Amino acid sequence: MDHKMKNVLVVGGDGFCGWPTALHLSQLGHSVTIVDNLSRRRIDDDLGANSLTPIQPIDVRIAAWHEATGKTIGFEHIDVALEYDRFEALLAALKPDTVIHFAEQRAAPYSMKGISEKRYTVDNNIGATHNLLAAITNLNLDTHIVHLGTMGVYGYDDDGMEIPEGYLKVYIPGDEKQIFQREILYPTNPGSVYHMTKSMDQILFQFYAKNDHLRITDLHQGIVWGTQTEETKLDDRLMNRFDYDGDYGTVLNRFLMQSAVGHPLTVHGTGGQTRAFIHIQDTVKCLALAVENPPQERNKVKILNQMTETHTVRHLAGLVADATGAPVANVENPRNEAAENGLRVSNETFISLGLQPITLAQGLCEETQQIAQRFADRCRMDMIPCVSTWTDNQRPGLVPSSAVAAA
Amino acid sequence: MDHKMKNVLVVGGDGFCGWPTALHLSQLGHSVTIVDNLSRRRIDDDLGANSLTPIQPIDVRIAAWHEATGKTIGFEHIDVALEYDRFEALLAALKPDTVIHFAEQRAAPYSMKGISEKRYTVDNNIGATHNLLAAITNLNLDTHIVHLGTMGVYGYDDDGMEIPEGYLKVYIPGDEKQIFQREILYPTNPGSVYHMTKSMDQILFQFYAKNDHLRITDLHQGIVWGTQTEETKLDDRLMNRFDYDGDYGTVLNRFLMQSAVGHPLTVHGTGGQTRAFIHIQDTVKCLALAVENPPQERNKVKILNQMTETHTVRHLAGLVADATGAPVANVENPRNEAAENGLRVSNETFISLGLQPITLAQGLCEETQQIAQRFADRCRMDMIPCVSTWTDNQRPGLVPSSAVAAA
Ligand SMILES: NC(=O)c1ccc[n+]([C@@H]2O[C@H](COP(=O)([O-])OP(=O)(O)OC[C@H]3O[C@@H](n4cnc5c(N)ncnc54)[C@H](O)[C@@H]3O)[C@@H](O)[C@H]2O)c1
Ligand SMILES: NC(=O)c1ccc[n+]([C@@H]2O[C@H](COP(=O)([O-])OP(=O)(O)OC[C@H]3O[C@@H](n4cnc5c(N)ncnc54)[C@H](O)[C@@H]3O)[C@@H](O)[C@H]2O)c1
Repeated sequence: MDHKMKNVLVVGGDGFCGWPTALHLSQLGHSVTIVDNLSRRRIDDDLGANSLTPIQPIDVRIAAWHEATGKTIGFEHIDVALEYDRFEALLAALKPDTVIHFAEQRAAPYSMKGISEKRYTVDNNIGATHNLLAAITNLNLDTHIVHLGTMGVYGYDDDGMEIPEGYLKVYIPGDEKQIFQREILYPTNPGSVYHMTKSMDQILFQFYAKNDHLRITDLHQGIVWGTQTEETKLDDRLMNRFDYDGDYGTVLNRFLMQSAVGHPLTVHGTGGQTRAFIHIQDTVKCLALAVENPPQERNKVKILNQMTETHTVRHLAGLVADATGAPVANVENPRNEAAENGLRVSNETFISLGLQPITLAQGLCEETQQIAQRFADRCRMDMIPCVSTWTDNQRPGLVPSSAVAAA
Repeated sequence: MDHKMKNVLVVGGDGFCGWPTALHLSQLGHSVTIVDNLSRRRIDDDLGANSLTPIQPIDVRIAAWHEATGKTIGFEHIDVALEYDRFEALLAALKPDTVIHFAEQRAAPYSMKGISEKRYTVDNNIGATHNLLAAITNLNLDTHIVHLGTMGVYGYDDDGMEIPEGYLKVYIPGDEKQIFQREILYPTNPGSVYHMTKSMDQILFQFYAKNDHLRITDLHQGIVWGTQTEETKLDDRLMNRFDYDGDYGTVLNRFLMQSAVGHPLTVHGTGGQTRAFIHIQDTVKCLALAVENPPQERNKVKILNQMTETHTVRHLAGLVADATGAPVANVENPRNEAAENGLRVSNETFISLGLQPITLAQGLCEETQQIAQRFADRCRMDMIPCVSTWTDNQRPGLVPSSAVAAA
């Protein structure tokens, strides 16, 4: 562990994970600057959606933090995908020890909504990641890059194999009885355009680590639940966002919100999909551990699984139904995915670094339930359903393309 | 084999591989339209470089083809990475059976030149590929996409394993004595920003094949040598480009040109790098075979290795030196790569489809030698050296970043 206080740039620091991470690092004594283009707030406006919790403008948030703690967080309004020169100039001026990169379009349903959302997700996410890598290289900085990836890059192959932390040792029989052995990046199998961009990010990281010896940590995060952290609780103006809509709401938070407003819990298909989860409080702890433990190795990306437990969607719905009495409604699955899958994941690195996970069973969804109830009147019921579908059409058996061209 | 004449869109059809492919397909009776933004000609202007052969403007080329054969080739000036709407409208109007996608920045040294070339290569190549996939999906077309990848995505691991056609069957020991078996995309290990974009393309193809059932053929091509094809020889105005400069010139053509102008053959390092090669005449034949043999499978990309022989750079230099008497000069290798490597590659699909490769040994570099001699006076000697280096700096042991920021 490296106890020196760091100069940390939090890119995407106005978002659901980024904001509480910025506060936590600031609380620990690190010097924190946020970069964000506030695109997430704009997407809410465009969708007519909103955070269930009332979130304050970024300057109010930062002023409230200063009032509550005496600590200062910097803010720069930069689009890191589109404003390369401004971003490079900021990096040149700050020379951060660490850049945490949260700045990507992160909703799978949104990324599948239509042609412009698909294109935006690819352009924004690949542009942001590559600009960061290229700028650090170009400036010759020795900055440690911490990136948020997703468990979804692994895919859900379900042959019972435990998912390792990024790399896999494989054996390949040769044509002359030899056996070749290689350590490879876990073969990626993304399930949406969003997840696809994270798989592409991995290749960007692999190349810049190998060619330019950048130090990179890629955190393959599970689905985050919960809302508040120790720091966001200090003042209502610091409150974190809570997404519940069909595009951005993640499954557990959606269930809690649905129960609070008397909506049946919408389970996609049989709910047999097993996914990995982590509480937002653990997310910020993992980020601090990642910042304080930069990789020794320079030629190889350090990949950690940032998740604490796995559950089926069905099981989660059952838990919330038991706790709240809400009914469960199985709806058609809009996604292209296996109806049922198992999932075993290694998270040994964070556990060995001392993470003590908050489990669902510890009743900690209470806090989230309270949030859901407190702000239930802010919920727009029409935003709850998932309307993005993974495939409008099936090949073969196509709609005649003339009909489409005319449409 | 599918004997129906196809409606083929050749994206990047003004380039070194695209132009002779368009002519060959037109000659075979397919209906051909070229899309190109002429960026390759602009890059030549920017670099102060030029094709050794005098190439005609695209409209003159197309008129000459009509004069020589009575056949018509269409042309649309569209940037497929930046002008999505115009590109989609063209696809909607043409409903091509096949799109061949050549439209990428394809020089590894150019992609490593500096920050703007790195960013341009990523933005252009990923933008072009994703726009094509997203447009075909959005229009609900059943178009077969044929893409030019590169042997370079495989990397040069050199443990003696034969490189298969895209996929690898691997075995993974589990934690409880089971053995898991999977068929995976060959683990990619790109050696430049250019090659990295081709590795990222693979993930785009994998996703759109799986999710949207697009039919995709990805051709992992070796280094192309030669200049002319049967069709480009029909009229001087149809002549193909011949790149010889340090950025775009590929190794064998560079040697032939260097010998023609009395420049020593510049071998990087020991010349022990083994690479895969193919003659431009075989490239156009492979493309016709790919167009006429679309994959049956829709969920999985068909990957073929489009190469015919492997040689070390040293061996090639020796061949050219023997034939021409030119001296060999070993220069420092600007690339980050192994000094020596072996390479074994499977190309069984094209061979089984009837390809009869033109080998170097058949003396066919004669034609290229003639071209090099005929146009030797057009050579700019100062464009010959490779000036792009792979790493300006090494981490750790960095130039103080203040010096860089000030620069
Ligand atoms: N929330 C989850 O459950 C979860 C799970 C796994 C991984 N992740 C990953 O964690 C990261 C953060 O997720 P989140 O839930 O906080 O998402 P979020 O959308 O709430 O936050 C992302 C932030 O980045 C900003 N941003 C996006 N593009 C930008 C650009 N080009 N320039 C500057 N700022 C930009 C947005 O305005 C937003 O504030 C993402 O990369 C996401 O993929 C999240
Ligand atoms: N030449 C080789 O040795 C070789 C080897 C392996 C693979 N390849 C691949 O084959 C393909 C063609 O290579 P080439 O040697 O003919 O290259 P080239 O540069 O001569 O041709 C590419 C053509 O695409 C056009 N183009 C680029 N971006 C475009 C855009 N956004 N919109 C429209 N047009 C665009 C260029 O103007 C050019 O005419 C490339 O994808 C390359 O990676 C080439």
